[in-house]
Amino acid sequence: MLQTRIAEKGLSAVLSTNAATWYYLTGFTGEAGALVVSLADCALVTDGRFVEQAKQETSGVRVIKQQASLMATVGRLLGGRRERRIGFNSGQLTVAQFRALRKAAGARTRWVKADGQTESLRQRKDDGESAQMRKAANLASDVLSGALKFLKPGVTEIEVGAEIEYQMRRRGASGPAFETIVAFGEHSAYPHARPTAKRLRKNELVVLDLGAILGHYCSDITRTVYVGRAPKRIRRWYRAVQEAQSAAVAAAKAGASCGDVDAAARGILANYRLDRYFVHSTGHGLGLEVHEDPRVALGQKHTLVPGNVITIEPGIYVPGVGGIRIEDDVVVHAERTEVLTRVPRDLIEI
Amino acid sequence: MLQTRIAEKGLSAVLSTNAATWYYLTGFTGEAGALVVSLADCALVTDGRFVEQAKQETSGVRVIKQQASLMATVGRLLGGRRERRIGFNSGQLTVAQFRALRKAAGARTRWVKADGQTESLRQRKDDGESAQMRKAANLASDVLSGALKFLKPGVTEIEVGAEIEYQMRRRGASGPAFETIVAFGEHSAYPHARPTAKRLRKNELVVLDLGAILGHYCSDITRTVYVGRAPKRIRRWYRAVQEAQSAAVAAAKAGASCGDVDAAARGILANYRLDRYFVHSTGHGLGLEVHEDPRVALGQKHTLVPGNVITIEPGIYVPGVGGIRIEDDVVVHAERTEVLTRVPRDLIEI
Repeated sequence: MLQTRIAEKGLSAVLSTNAATWYYLTGFTGEAGALVVSLADCALVTDGRFVEQAKQETSGVRVIKQQASLMATVGRLLGGRRERRIGFNSGQLTVAQFRALRKAAGARTRWVKADGQTESLRQRKDDGESAQMRKAANLASDVLSGALKFLKPGVTEIEVGAEIEYQMRRRGASGPAFETIVAFGEHSAYPHARPTAKRLRKNELVVLDLGAILGHYCSDITRTVYVGRAPKRIRRWYRAVQEAQSAAVAAAKAGASCGDVDAAARGILANYRLDRYFVHSTGHGLGLEVHEDPRVALGQKHTLVPGNVITIEPGIYVPGVGGIRIEDDVVVHAERTEVLTRVPRDLIEI
Repeated sequence: MLQTRIAEKGLSAVLSTNAATWYYLTGFTGEAGALVVSLADCALVTDGRFVEQAKQETSGVRVIKQQASLMATVGRLLGGRRERRIGFNSGQLTVAQFRALRKAAGARTRWVKADGQTESLRQRKDDGESAQMRKAANLASDVLSGALKFLKPGVTEIEVGAEIEYQMRRRGASGPAFETIVAFGEHSAYPHARPTAKRLRKNELVVLDLGAILGHYCSDITRTVYVGRAPKRIRRWYRAVQEAQSAAVAAAKAGASCGDVDAAARGILANYRLDRYFVHSTGHGLGLEVHEDPRVALGQKHTLVPGNVITIEPGIYVPGVGGIRIEDDVVVHAERTEVLTRVPRDLIEI
């Protein structure tokens, strides 16, 4: 399929420096390297730390050990006396890498911006991938449910985060898909708070946002808890976010645009006059990477197709008070949308 | 000090998109954004998720919320009708970001490659930073020592990794500095193996490579264990790596070049005819990032100065058999070099 695209675009080869993409295409799990796919050949350039591993993990792939620098080696591989058109991703290569690449390849090599050509193959998950993501989502759901019992006044954000990541691994995850968010009280007003030594008190909000990597695929789930009996204002805010999240899940159908999904959540929050507290986008693609295309944001034109897996995670963040976010992972199918994460969405009071 | 450099280089401002650098200069701990430092002003551009957090965490910094895209906002901030010279890091910006930046800034803005100008400030740790890194190294040392008791035949790499990261956090770390490496048997021949469900057997090598983030600063330590009584060949290999590591630590003095440190390790392994199995560099700078300048690699000309903190981690990797690596963190002082990590370096047989 990638080769078809290469031919259609009139390219000689495409270059990818995205680790998830080279795992997807070759099985190589190393952290550093570059993949070059041409019509005739698939070559993986990597450094000494990963050469043996690459040979073991791949088949039908030419493994090349990088010499002076990665881009010098790749450039020499892609250059030469014949005119060639190489597709590259301008969002992956740094300015320095691109300069080194062009220099090593020489003047006869033309560089064609082909952003997402290779990565977009990963957007449409097949049944095996969806099944794996279902397992990863179940694991995250179990860990989140289990984490609630650690939320006792006096515990620190770091301690709860430690328990969460420990429980993930005990259940077979190779690790967290991102740094677990455990945010108490006013910290929860920061959508991406990092765990601190702050201790849990009564009568505050708690945001738990966690994900696990299981068999290379990511999950991502958020729930919000109130320690005690939530006051009326918090209940109203929670209801708004919950309605917004349900509306966005309902909108996430094959044929809808990602912008429509975002608008569904944003519209509900606007009805509650809370949209100014919704400071991020509604979601993102999920797969081998925790953030991948498609983005589920304001005005995004990508049309959802069967196999897309995205998160739906509206939230509101009131400075000095706290935040509320509800997040699920969904798979778009032809006739229905499946929610992978399985934890009740009602306000949890503990 | 940064402002002095800006003036010396005849720049109007410098741009950094490195999270460790903006934390270093402003205290902002968010994950996304861009810092612009000029002679008169320090501005931080970030998205809605981090605006409130940035205002709380910084003082004397102008916090600007990004509009359409980060680079469009930064470009408009840096552009204008006056001629300006902006220093940027070509190893940080992607080709796509740089294009967006230039477009938004307009034709009167000149872009000057100033790689490392901002980041290099972080290379010379002050006493407070060294003290923090001592604590982070002690924590990692304790965790590594404690992890040995989990190495019983039948345990999996993932289980040991889970225990290690759990223990880090129990001791106050905000998290691991990198994905913990737990590699059994032939897996240990991959320098950057990821933990798998592989079970520990008798009579094999185990490489444990772990680091903790404590108070924002990283540590990084590796030890190699043999499960059982090591055969003669393994003992000889271990002795070679241990000698190489000691020689490199001894070479890491103020005034020496990083290339000299690398050569010290590589020379010993060559004496043992094992240098072809040493497939990576001897070490790297350590600080707010787990890999930062200076690199301690073949031919690196950087001269060590007091305040540099580097890892010293030679290793050998024999495909199909296993690997051996010993790693410590050291601080270069004017008159001596201090080893921060405190776990015996002799072969551990369990």
